[in-house]
Amino acid sequence: MAKKEIKHFDIEKIENPEFLKGLSYKELDVLSDDIRDYIIEMVSRNGGHLSANLGTIDFTISLCRNFDFTKDKIVFDVGHQCYTYKILTGRKLDTLRKKDGISGFQKMDESPYDHFEAGHSSTSISAVSGMAIARDLKGEKYDVIAFIGDSAIQNGLAFEALNNAAQANHKVIIILNDNGMSISQPVGGMSKLFRRLSGSAFYLKSKNVFRRIFWVTRFGRWIWVKFTKIKNWFKRKVINLTIFDRLGFDYIGPIDGHYIRHLDKALKRAKKSPKSVVLHIKTIKGKGYSYAEEDVEGEWHGVGKFNKETGEIAIKDAVVSWSEQYKVLLRNEMELNPNIVTIVPATGHGSDLDSMFKTFPTRMIDVGIAEEHAFTLAGGLAASGIHPVVSIYSTFLQRSYDELFHDVARMNFDMTILIDRAGLVGSDGDTHQGVYDEAFLYTIPNVTIAMASKSNEALSLMKESLCHHGVFAIRYPRESFQNKVDEVKKIPYGTWKVEIESSSKDTAIVSVGPITVGLKEKLLELNKNVTLYNAVYVKPYDTAKVKELLKFKKVIIYNAYATKEGFANALVADLMEQSYAGEVIVKTVPTIFVKQASIDEQREEFGLRIDDIIDLL
Amino acid sequence: MAKKEIKHFDIEKIENPEFLKGLSYKELDVLSDDIRDYIIEMVSRNGGHLSANLGTIDFTISLCRNFDFTKDKIVFDVGHQCYTYKILTGRKLDTLRKKDGISGFQKMDESPYDHFEAGHSSTSISAVSGMAIARDLKGEKYDVIAFIGDSAIQNGLAFEALNNAAQANHKVIIILNDNGMSISQPVGGMSKLFRRLSGSAFYLKSKNVFRRIFWVTRFGRWIWVKFTKIKNWFKRKVINLTIFDRLGFDYIGPIDGHYIRHLDKALKRAKKSPKSVVLHIKTIKGKGYSYAEEDVEGEWHGVGKFNKETGEIAIKDAVVSWSEQYKVLLRNEMELNPNIVTIVPATGHGSDLDSMFKTFPTRMIDVGIAEEHAFTLAGGLAASGIHPVVSIYSTFLQRSYDELFHDVARMNFDMTILIDRAGLVGSDGDTHQGVYDEAFLYTIPNVTIAMASKSNEALSLMKESLCHHGVFAIRYPRESFQNKVDEVKKIPYGTWKVEIESSSKDTAIVSVGPITVGLKEKLLELNKNVTLYNAVYVKPYDTAKVKELLKFKKVIIYNAYATKEGFANALVADLMEQSYAGEVIVKTVPTIFVKQASIDEQREEFGLRIDDIIDLL
Repeated sequence: MAKKEIKHFDIEKIENPEFLKGLSYKELDVLSDDIRDYIIEMVSRNGGHLSANLGTIDFTISLCRNFDFTKDKIVFDVGHQCYTYKILTGRKLDTLRKKDGISGFQKMDESPYDHFEAGHSSTSISAVSGMAIARDLKGEKYDVIAFIGDSAIQNGLAFEALNNAAQANHKVIIILNDNGMSISQPVGGMSKLFRRLSGSAFYLKSKNVFRRIFWVTRFGRWIWVKFTKIKNWFKRKVINLTIFDRLGFDYIGPIDGHYIRHLDKALKRAKKSPKSVVLHIKTIKGKGYSYAEEDVEGEWHGVGKFNKETGEIAIKDAVVSWSEQYKVLLRNEMELNPNIVTIVPATGHGSDLDSMFKTFPTRMIDVGIAEEHAFTLAGGLAASGIHPVVSIYSTFLQRSYDELFHDVARMNFDMTILIDRAGLVGSDGDTHQGVYDEAFLYTIPNVTIAMASKSNEALSLMKESLCHHGVFAIRYPRESFQNKVDEVKKIPYGTWKVEIESSSKDTAIVSVGPITVGLKEKLLELNKNVTLYNAVYVKPYDTAKVKELLKFKKVIIYNAYATKEGFANALVADLMEQSYAGEVIVKTVPTIFVKQASIDEQREEFGLRIDDIIDLL
Repeated sequence: MAKKEIKHFDIEKIENPEFLKGLSYKELDVLSDDIRDYIIEMVSRNGGHLSANLGTIDFTISLCRNFDFTKDKIVFDVGHQCYTYKILTGRKLDTLRKKDGISGFQKMDESPYDHFEAGHSSTSISAVSGMAIARDLKGEKYDVIAFIGDSAIQNGLAFEALNNAAQANHKVIIILNDNGMSISQPVGGMSKLFRRLSGSAFYLKSKNVFRRIFWVTRFGRWIWVKFTKIKNWFKRKVINLTIFDRLGFDYIGPIDGHYIRHLDKALKRAKKSPKSVVLHIKTIKGKGYSYAEEDVEGEWHGVGKFNKETGEIAIKDAVVSWSEQYKVLLRNEMELNPNIVTIVPATGHGSDLDSMFKTFPTRMIDVGIAEEHAFTLAGGLAASGIHPVVSIYSTFLQRSYDELFHDVARMNFDMTILIDRAGLVGSDGDTHQGVYDEAFLYTIPNVTIAMASKSNEALSLMKESLCHHGVFAIRYPRESFQNKVDEVKKIPYGTWKVEIESSSKDTAIVSVGPITVGLKEKLLELNKNVTLYNAVYVKPYDTAKVKELLKFKKVIIYNAYATKEGFANALVADLMEQSYAGEVIVKTVPTIFVKQASIDEQREEFGLRIDDIIDLL
């Protein structure tokens, strides 16, 4: 094999993408392989986004050959597929996703090559549109590029940006990275359009038998390419314009996203085009790593540490994740009650709900990355007597603020929201923190907010939410817990549990969420003479118990899963209104954008560990 | 004229739409005229949405002939064009938009004919999709219809819903009400598509000379209709599929939305179609009222009281609206600083910014109803060194929570947000209240929030926002104010003004916003011995002044423009933390969905008038 003659690259010695321009296509193929091996190695050690990064190595190499990102600008949508870009712009991945290490996303303070940041989906076209306007106003010359997947482009924000960019005279280049994610899980009409595009033009045809015949000689290749171009032009322009052409873009594609030679040509054409371009590339998620390539469930999308030889993903101890726990509870309720419909905005796998789609094919709805639609759809369901459940990550619930407010809570419809990854999330960093939802849900009338500390409480909340009139939000963290079988007791709506009742009226602790279990154990172990309330309901909260608080000299409000603007401030204001004269200590996550680190490290930084609370006594 | 022979209808005697089925087309035309006159009369007395309602009379008549809304369901997008529907379902408009009167929008507690509610745009397709799923799960049979305008359908939420509805096997009927709003203000690529559709098919052709010739005889009509159908079918299916066909809908149209006979046919076809339908109708905004028909600025979109004969809109006294005031300030700053770009999400007219588009053609950007995109676009501009200003209504800012959070504040970009209609909004009711933004902005790190009480403070805030590092939100209410020329003094960042300094340490009032001016006058007039702070900055607020508060026996926090979850609770919690031992009284808008009434009536209800504060002394 010719490849073996070419020497391998020392990936960690790459300083910038300049060297790419001097490489032959054979050398580039070796580089691509070396980067793949490096990424697999680093992600197997640190965890991270694997499949998306393996799928975009070849494209990123071509991208960095054809543009100069010391002046051109690139925004990777979501940003979790930029590992190759990080490597080519001189970053090592040995500290990937660790405290003070390299982020799993683009980060402006990490490198001058990062021009924007993301973590949430579908922002890239808007962002580069802004950059294009700024460029043209200032009379500068450079290219701005949005790199966006076929699922992400179907979100409303991306559509708004596409719709606007099509008519604005500010050129942007949009790379549509079509890895069939929206096809394997076809949630929208646009998936059909992509499927049709992919089945028609250059991409598929270039694989067929005629191509192989023509391709033998140089002249044959020339004939083939010209002929295909003319045919495709005719097909698209005359018969079958794509949605992108119709909106006003120059559409190029589909192009094989693993064939650097073709990518180079397509990028050159995109660069030359006088108007905004959509370049449609086809890539294979997990390309080159069989476990990831064959993955249909999304197991290799974001992974923890794994054995790169065997593909064995490190399994955690004998604990249950909260996602799993709520999946079981939800499944049981859906079995009992045919009137429940569950909506997920593309987070089914992350929230462990995959299997539910098989069990309830008509009552599980994946709307794709469409958090806004998820809630208004829930409103429509509720208006017609169905009890909707939306399962969503805390950080993505931010997208649905208005729809929850205007289309559900305002009409006081009944619904359950399962808020996964509420609280600190660790290594995903500041784009994914789930510590804000309690506070912003506090501003919406008619919304109940609760958080269980144990599985039996979770069961009680789940059941309550289904018979409650109004919106009922149940928060749970990313962490796992030791599941012990407990007696199941109904927790009356809006109340707290007394976990420890002390004879002393010195100190009361009002604690929220699963950490309360550990706190209780520690307090009992140390024989601390304090009263511990488990604030299962934070909105509305237990007014009778608040009356009891007035008798204590000191009240500690401990919420390791939220900032203070919701429950904590409301409780303090209430105590003040009731002329409480003692001392109040509030321990919550600070209202800042919390950087990546492990959850334990983040708690330590903010004084939110159990020991920090013990120290206050 | 034949019309004159047909007797007029007593609009206020209509009880339900049953009678429509027995009417001839000539009678229907008279009915249409009578409804128009009634709507003009009622809106001229009460104010309301005029143009959109005049444009949809004929369609709504046809709709109510062809569907039975005791079982079928209709959602009017935004909902401000449902006056004819209200009339035909037995509601009088004499109390339109008044306290305890008929709402300007669909309201479920007003009539069993209202199946959902809106006020914000672009929710209807999602809502009826939910209804369709519920219907099919329950095995029921009825139609669900979304009625949505050509501007509203270009919003991301509507697109997400369209994209999902196209592939779901739950039939919905979508009426695209194309009144050229997106064409007269072409902000998106989809406008171009609509323009092309309108320029091609049945609609235009039906107006041409051949049509008139064929139309003379019944056979000629038959020939014409068949021929046109075949031609249009060929054109659409073979040559030129619409975006709706491509997504997977059955597309019908465009149809003249003022020609009831055609509408009847089209609606029958929509009803029969086995799959989801988009029926595209063309209407004329303001149809039949020349002042409104000729309006290009949007002056007759939502109007106050007016003289229906002369078209003279009642002008308020010699006061200045806050919108106008901030327009002037913004214009001055944009003249001084070429680095400012202002983005409006279709609220340019409402916020009095129309003229600015002529002054700054390249630096004023109307993104259409795309609140999400507006903020991420601002992020892109800011990333490239432009200072973006987004002018938006408080209630629509809810749509941008995540984009402001994730794409602007998280990266601590510099930007100004001008939040119009912050506070109570009066007769638009619970869908439009601007009292929540202070609270939800409080949950986002790096966001400054301020509110001026007078024009000189507004100037100071505007200037500060433009040199401040980070997001700077300036709130202002819907109301007007007596503009007095005051000395302009810079208000240091994050501080309050002392309006009255009293020798007594009995009571301090911390007051927010324009009402502070009236409160000060009243306190001085009554010679009350209190200290009055004008809390210009509510986040961050004036910590030095908070120290002063500790000396008072009583502190009154008065914010008539927001709920307590933001500034008020934060300040109380701070006082508590500083061991304040006095009494605190919090007067804010309650955290409820506030129903329609005048702003004064709403303030009275909540004890938020100046006199209510005086009563506390």
